[in-house]
Amino acid sequence: MLNDFTYQTPTKLIFGKGVIKELPKEIAKFGKNVLLTYGGGSIKKMGLYDEVYKLLDGFNITELSGIEPNPKYDPSVIIGAKLCKENNIDVILSVGGGSVLDCSKAISVCAKYDGEGWDLISGKVKAKAAVPIVDIITLAATGSEYDMGCVISNTAISDKRGYLDELLYPAVSFLDPEYTFSVSKWQTACGTADAINHVLEQFFAAPNSMFNDGIMISALRSLMTNVKIALKDPNDYSARSELMYVCSWGCNGILANGAGYSGWPMHSIEHALSAYFDITHGAGLAIITPRWMKEILSEKTVERFVTLGRNLFGLDKNLSDFETTQKVIDGFYAFFEETGIPMHLAELGVKEDKIEEMADHILENDSTNEPWMFAPLDKDALIRILKASM
Amino acid sequence: MLNDFTYQTPTKLIFGKGVIKELPKEIAKFGKNVLLTYGGGSIKKMGLYDEVYKLLDGFNITELSGIEPNPKYDPSVIIGAKLCKENNIDVILSVGGGSVLDCSKAISVCAKYDGEGWDLISGKVKAKAAVPIVDIITLAATGSEYDMGCVISNTAISDKRGYLDELLYPAVSFLDPEYTFSVSKWQTACGTADAINHVLEQFFAAPNSMFNDGIMISALRSLMTNVKIALKDPNDYSARSELMYVCSWGCNGILANGAGYSGWPMHSIEHALSAYFDITHGAGLAIITPRWMKEILSEKTVERFVTLGRNLFGLDKNLSDFETTQKVIDGFYAFFEETGIPMHLAELGVKEDKIEEMADHILENDSTNEPWMFAPLDKDALIRILKASM
Repeated sequence: MLNDFTYQTPTKLIFGKGVIKELPKEIAKFGKNVLLTYGGGSIKKMGLYDEVYKLLDGFNITELSGIEPNPKYDPSVIIGAKLCKENNIDVILSVGGGSVLDCSKAISVCAKYDGEGWDLISGKVKAKAAVPIVDIITLAATGSEYDMGCVISNTAISDKRGYLDELLYPAVSFLDPEYTFSVSKWQTACGTADAINHVLEQFFAAPNSMFNDGIMISALRSLMTNVKIALKDPNDYSARSELMYVCSWGCNGILANGAGYSGWPMHSIEHALSAYFDITHGAGLAIITPRWMKEILSEKTVERFVTLGRNLFGLDKNLSDFETTQKVIDGFYAFFEETGIPMHLAELGVKEDKIEEMADHILENDSTNEPWMFAPLDKDALIRILKASM
Repeated sequence: MLNDFTYQTPTKLIFGKGVIKELPKEIAKFGKNVLLTYGGGSIKKMGLYDEVYKLLDGFNITELSGIEPNPKYDPSVIIGAKLCKENNIDVILSVGGGSVLDCSKAISVCAKYDGEGWDLISGKVKAKAAVPIVDIITLAATGSEYDMGCVISNTAISDKRGYLDELLYPAVSFLDPEYTFSVSKWQTACGTADAINHVLEQFFAAPNSMFNDGIMISALRSLMTNVKIALKDPNDYSARSELMYVCSWGCNGILANGAGYSGWPMHSIEHALSAYFDITHGAGLAIITPRWMKEILSEKTVERFVTLGRNLFGLDKNLSDFETTQKVIDGFYAFFEETGIPMHLAELGVKEDKIEEMADHILENDSTNEPWMFAPLDKDALIRILKASM
């Protein structure tokens, strides 16, 4: 059964070994003036920075470097928007992971707006135009390269916003799996955990269609199988290519066209954890996942666990629903642990005495307790999940 | 393992019950002058014709009706292009199944070309512009609503062409499963067989990725399960909605991003059958499928059968590869038969004495015997498949 939906993802994916050679042709479609955005030095270390300059010989390149993880409105977005205006930027070229790309997306609309950019990001004003974005993604994780969202922090007012707008779809995304060969074991595990969680947030909803269920289970199977291969052999092209492609499907809705909307409760919880303790997003999600599953188990949700148990974990049909569910929850716990993620929040520096405050923060900022949700979480439920995750 | 690929499908899907109410808003984005294209009287019988006129009150509507199955360059495309030019058409609204939409796609480029339109369709000249297309699809089958292809016949020169161009993506496709409630059992079965074959043409290729395999198996499972429900209860919304959505994925490449290209050999064979005996496309494909499978079975292809056997048909892992393959082939035969398709070409009027001529025709027009193909078919192989299908 499919609910009504509208779906459109205009981004062009250019995927494969050495596809960056197409960069000049794609950039030239938009103009000569390029804002190159990137983070720290990793793209220089891997030679990508030099490669981009060699390919874009003849273009006018302005640079914005030093974009931080959890990108900030002030200074990064503000400076980027200013650089776009001053240099008549035709196209933003984002080189890096999801944070650089998210920051570039925010810059793209702020550059075309004369007022305070935060009014766009916070939803007060609807953006009317954006500078086109081309990206070269170097981390398989967030799916920002194929979606219309970004997450931006405004530290001056202690705010962190997920901002969605159709203008934010990248025009072109270059996905070369070889750029992820140098990603550390920790980032590989956490990036995959993030993508797995994107799928689960959409899987635990109703109604569901047979078709989408199969797609999501296939995504989970591919992620869980290939991350183990990539952790063992970081240069395994096949594994890295599957991880990169599947991650790109995480957040543009294609996995769940026609499905109900769950509200993405695990992301709500994790955003509080990151805000309070600056932990790695994917690690936080991995730790919460099995505890959240245990919390939401009910007559209504058990079918989801059984579907996962039989089709993802290959469990015997003769097991009881309870046994199947337990094995699914244990299965995810064991899987994340095997990828090297410590499965207790305390190990990441989270303090138990902040749990109640975080629960209040979640309910205030992300409303996990709406009646339309598949499995609403009240304050007690949030506290139970967080305590069990310690 | 994923091969290199480029993927972009800009079409906006608007899916669900009563979504047609959005029609005026979507049409207005392109202008006031609309060419309404449709086939016979079925859209009048179901009330859709009147509904469109009611919704498009205030627009200037020009009509092209009577578009035939296997749409013809002369007269339909020629007349449609002329109507576009004479009436300054801003947008083509295609209402009907894949044939009406395919014809509309051909019209859309010919309307923007001053020379002989067939030069575009036959690939002699590259189209530079097209009139935008909005469609309301009334049959779950070809996937034309979400792809950049059309198939057009030129009877004057006995030619039938598959024409691909990025300009042919519909701008907006309206998919309301309720419009398929009145589709006959025969068309429901044949439309689903067409979609199943689209998946199989992409599944039997190499390399394959774990992710794509799972998507394709999910598509097959959904089609095979839901067509049986729809045949029993034509008004089952859940089944009709899955069929409609899955069919739309058939031909835009998303099912097989990064996979090898098989050459679509069953379609090559069926196009000859249609050309010689004007049989229903989906029925022809259903009849050929198990015979083609038997023909291509080899050390190289057996893994594909085993993957289908274990994951689609749920066969025991302890069966030998040979037993599994046999059960897969028998399974497809029995499935198509159960949906009411006669499983012998003779029953559709195909004559055995034309088989050799058709084999020559296939090799001349569609080249099924290229060394890069997953399972090349020479003349003897084509004859064996056709004879076994009689």
